[in-house]
Amino acid sequence: NHYIICGHGRIGSVICQVLQESNKPFVVIEKNPDEIQKILSKEYVVLEGEASQDDTLQKAGIERALALIAVVSSDADNVFITLTAKGINPKIVVLARSSGATGAETKLRRAGADKVISPYFIGGRRMAQAMLRPNVTDFIDLAIYTRDMGLRLDEMLVTENAFINGKTLIESNLRQKYNIIVIAIKRTGEGMSFNPTSDSILLAGDVLIVLGRPDQISALEKEMKIVSCEKLTDRVEIE
Amino acid sequence: NHYIICGHGRIGSVICQVLQESNKPFVVIEKNPDEIQKILSKEYVVLEGEASQDDTLQKAGIERALALIAVVSSDADNVFITLTAKGINPKIVVLARSSGATGAETKLRRAGADKVISPYFIGGRRMAQAMLRPNVTDFIDLAIYTRDMGLRLDEMLVTENAFINGKTLIESNLRQKYNIIVIAIKRTGEGMSFNPTSDSILLAGDVLIVLGRPDQISALEKEMKIVSCEKLTDRVEIE
Ligand SMILES: [Ca+2]
Ligand SMILES: [Ca+2]
Repeated sequence: NHYIICGHGRIGSVICQVLQESNKPFVVIEKNPDEIQKILSKEYVVLEGEASQDDTLQKAGIERALALIAVVSSDADNVFITLTAKGINPKIVVLARSSGATGAETKLRRAGADKVISPYFIGGRRMAQAMLRPNVTDFIDLAIYTRDMGLRLDEMLVTENAFINGKTLIESNLRQKYNIIVIAIKRTGEGMSFNPTSDSILLAGDVLIVLGRPDQISALEKEMKIVSCEKLTDRVEIE
Repeated sequence: NHYIICGHGRIGSVICQVLQESNKPFVVIEKNPDEIQKILSKEYVVLEGEASQDDTLQKAGIERALALIAVVSSDADNVFITLTAKGINPKIVVLARSSGATGAETKLRRAGADKVISPYFIGGRRMAQAMLRPNVTDFIDLAIYTRDMGLRLDEMLVTENAFINGKTLIESNLRQKYNIIVIAIKRTGEGMSFNPTSDSILLAGDVLIVLGRPDQISALEKEMKIVSCEKLTDRVEIE
């Protein structure tokens, strides 16, 4: 399972960089030969063609892709790409760039986009916050976008087989063992609850918003996976 | 003290909205009559003119402004606005929009911009994270950009007169009294340290990155101010 990036312009190139740094597989669709040279020089997988054509998307593996990101410059083109993508694979998650123009978001959603983001809206909010709360914005940059720094803000799904499933926050021992703090819990069908108490019970399907050192978050992720695999093996042997 | 917004386009309008919601005073400089009608309809203070002209900036009160945000469309114009602003008031903080083009940031910084933000870079990173960590991005939106929701991520300067100055985190009683958690501390001259221990000492000049309910953060801010004012009064009486 991979991501499909439609357009390697100023936004698409940033997305590709983040995905590569995160070790997520992706393919870029681009029609501009000069841009394709840049993509090739970065050793990304690239597909030359029109992202709004069925056969291009099929070559990109749309039927087995995790998500498609439509980030060409024009709203109309992003609408067309979205319609084409959803036509071939109705289940694919589509994230579309909007120009921020009146009605653009509505049309992208009507075309099937699951999420619509205007770089101007995001950039404007960010600029305002950089003025009002410069340290919070620096914190966010360190915790989300800076790799291998002292801290990371991350999310973790509590799986049915996770060792913390059914335990209270204090019983899970995340603070003691990993020096990880759970700052919010997102439970399906409910809103996000923050600053959970020690006796909050963690349930399968919960997403924990955690803050901790990258190596400790990775260690916890690994432990959760190890336990998962072991239990699955046990179950197979019993049957 | 106020903010000066140069340009009420797609980014400038978002900045104005955030500043208004945050009850921060600002003036918008805009030269397009149609855009000026929009600004007037939102009841913002607007100044018609070229932001790159000395007399326009002087009319905007640049000598006593907190900061100037240069968000017109062209890099060259933002460079010129920055140069003009810094020429009149070398101390003003300038935040400039960059197109993201190669060399744009360098030139804006050379012109004197204190911070340079490309909406494409910010938007691209955000789009990638919306795919990789959708719940973390939702958490950020709730905690920073959504007013009057259940939680807020904020920063607080520990002043010399603040009641928490010189106390340890546990002595400050922020968790018990306000249900506020300090998730990071930014100390002048040092980096940001996260997840501080109970015996960390809070010093004047420290900036606390806090997470809590908006009403409780506001209550703490008020208490810090009340104590500050009282101590200043005491000092005056003694002299
Ligand atoms: Ca993760
Ligand atoms: Ca504040």
